Amino acid sequence: MSLVVVGSIAYDAVETPHGRVERMLGGACTYIALAASYFTQCKVVAVVGEDFADKDVELLASRNIDLAGMERAAGKTFFWSGVYSHDMNDRMTLRTDLNVFADFSPKLPDSYRDDPYLFLGNIQPALQKTVRAQMPQLRVTGGDTMNYWIADYREELLETIREWDFLLINDSEARMLSGEQNLRRAANAILAMGPNTLVIKRGEYGAMLFRRDQYFIVPGYLLEEVFDPTGAGDSFAGGFIGYLAERGCDLKNGHVERRDLARAVIYGSVMGSFCCEQFGVDRFRSLSRDDIERRFREFRTFTEF
Amino acid sequence: MSLVVVGSIAYDAVETPHGRVERMLGGACTYIALAASYFTQCKVVAVVGEDFADKDVELLASRNIDLAGMERAAGKTFFWSGVYSHDMNDRMTLRTDLNVFADFSPKLPDSYRDDPYLFLGNIQPALQKTVRAQMPQLRVTGGDTMNYWIADYREELLETIREWDFLLINDSEARMLSGEQNLRRAANAILAMGPNTLVIKRGEYGAMLFRRDQYFIVPGYLLEEVFDPTGAGDSFAGGFIGYLAERGCDLKNGHVERRDLARAVIYGSVMGSFCCEQFGVDRFRSLSRDDIERRFREFRTFTEF
Repeated sequence: MSLVVVGSIAYDAVETPHGRVERMLGGACTYIALAASYFTQCKVVAVVGEDFADKDVELLASRNIDLAGMERAAGKTFFWSGVYSHDMNDRMTLRTDLNVFADFSPKLPDSYRDDPYLFLGNIQPALQKTVRAQMPQLRVTGGDTMNYWIADYREELLETIREWDFLLINDSEARMLSGEQNLRRAANAILAMGPNTLVIKRGEYGAMLFRRDQYFIVPGYLLEEVFDPTGAGDSFAGGFIGYLAERGCDLKNGHVERRDLARAVIYGSVMGSFCCEQFGVDRFRSLSRDDIERRFREFRTFTEF
Repeated sequence: MSLVVVGSIAYDAVETPHGRVERMLGGACTYIALAASYFTQCKVVAVVGEDFADKDVELLASRNIDLAGMERAAGKTFFWSGVYSHDMNDRMTLRTDLNVFADFSPKLPDSYRDDPYLFLGNIQPALQKTVRAQMPQLRVTGGDTMNYWIADYREELLETIREWDFLLINDSEARMLSGEQNLRRAANAILAMGPNTLVIKRGEYGAMLFRRDQYFIVPGYLLEEVFDPTGAGDSFAGGFIGYLAERGCDLKNGHVERRDLARAVIYGSVMGSFCCEQFGVDRFRSLSRDDIERRFREFRTFTEF
């Protein structure tokens, strides 16, 4: 069933110990939609500039991603550049030019309004809230946020996530949002804020899913070579929500099997791991559903006891 | 089948965010033997001073641990004191008084010589080697080491571990020993040094086991309250080797099931998690095998998909 993804589409310049790319397609919405497109039909809500290249439109379209909600505005596309540390656990932002993204105001095409799945990428909480308000048929609403909104827009953020079924953030964001160092306590505190499901990404250490009465943890996939971690967390998000949409899960009305949630976390992990194997979105140019299923089975092999 | 454990028995002074203990039983050998004692008969090789308390002898004896190899020397027992950081991921050593441990030269009682399982705690590699040389019937030899031996006694260490079936170290030690940042590459490099099995402890993130043709990863158990992480890694070691001994696994001649190895890692994780629940060895005063089996099943519940 169709999934609407809201967020940034960008051009990135990235340097990792494996090399350097001056300009490549990026942005949270891009990674989420590409990853989710292996599981379900995606529709994006985003803004790009006049410089947005045809070949990038073609890549998204080739994955059957609906671009009716991709607005083209006067000016340049959001640009980000960064350098990763030697072990790739840290990155330094060199430059952020918001460009057309500075005035991003998500416009939902009529053809998106009755869709059942919504993923709200990391944008201002109030904007995330306006999108959700326009979609009356949602079965699953979830999204991401970041330290900036947690620190400086806390009230807006709390009002926004109160209506979500799941929140998907990383461990340091979970600690910051909850004020708890211990992740089990952090999870309990966040589940009391509204979402019935919390997913915590831990980078190379894997991911966790919490609900009031259960939790699931998976270790990270061990890549022999991490080429570029850019977009791995967003690819995780795409795999996670994409699988829930494929399965027709309903988090809003509570009809969801534990197994589906756990597998959604595995598919998220699978998509995040593939993303790191090449620069930017390159791995998605050749990736097949068979590759995904093979790695899913590999997860089973190295975690079963 | 019986397990011989060689290493330190100590008194520790520890401060964590939950409190402070001025003097408590500690040392790698103590934790390893206590944890392993739930699975198999343990025999220790260690040295203590004249100040070693009867109640501590009694605790070890109450777990049916053979103390024939626990030498009592003139002087004081090894003393260590440390303070943990707020999140307990770091600790600072305040004081290390080696005392009788400075001249520790492991003496193997005749009654230990034909035992099939040996765990060599973190001591000078050449001493580890002499113990192994005295035990002709070994089915499993494994042990631990630390950054100091890796950096300053590298050749001795390499000669020693060449004869081991498994090496059990933490992730930073694995990186240091192999010179590889990536853990999959680090594991391959270490497996080429002799051991057929490598276990890497990752603290709160869990543990991994590598063999030439397979690997297994388990996330860490999520405690709601970590009281004191002292001894958690050694308790892991005790659970791991203890279970292999209980199952009669033979790593030397290769008769070992993947499932037994994976479960040994789970039992190690279970014992490490219990250790953190109270100060020092206190949790082992009340812990039962039923508690252990319950947590083992909990591991299955939160990792199955």
